Amino acid sequence: MTAEPHPTPGFDEIVHQPNRLGILVVLAEADRADFSYLKRLVGLTDGNLGRHLSVLEDAGLMELRKSIEGNRPRTWATITRRGRKCLDAELAAMRDLVSRFEQ
Amino acid sequence: MTAEPHPTPGFDEIVHQPNRLGILVVLAEADRADFSYLKRLVGLTDGNLGRHLSVLEDAGLMELRKSIEGNRPRTWATITRRGRKCLDAELAAMRDLVSRFEQ
Repeated sequence: MTAEPHPTPGFDEIVHQPNRLGILVVLAEADRADFSYLKRLVGLTDGNLGRHLSVLEDAGLMELRKSIEGNRPRTWATITRRGRKCLDAELAAMRDLVSRFEQ
Repeated sequence: MTAEPHPTPGFDEIVHQPNRLGILVVLAEADRADFSYLKRLVGLTDGNLGRHLSVLEDAGLMELRKSIEGNRPRTWATITRRGRKCLDAELAAMRDLVSRFEQ
């Protein structure tokens, strides 16, 4: 048996994780999304969502901006160009893997 | 903004993890694969590969069998029916996500 290439090399752990992937998908489709919307969407606690957002922000895939609306602070997330690029790479890796099985 | 459904609900953490996904892909294509082949393929240490294989085995997605060939012990991995089903579900979830962006 000769070694064939690793079948899943295109998956980056930061983007690939399902909750972070879900967040990036939503941000790629929307202009921006706020913390409570993302929280409802992915069904995480404040702490867990905050941790995933930090991972994405530290990797330069997403930016957070805080604003005050009325008297309430809101946190808005937007995807960066790098975030879109990494999401595209993830989707391309998924497409490759799926087509491998469709042949 | 109304809550839309979570965009990545079909991803199961056990199957989705890139190294475990790679192992299942190879096992779905081959009849069986031995420990050292899988190790070369995914580029993991013995300990890390062993842990991923345990996770897959505990979830009933893969079976390990030990044999002695010559004087050397070999460990063979095969995918179970449940493993194929879960891999199919993962690929279907990937297909859905990719097609969401192709529209």
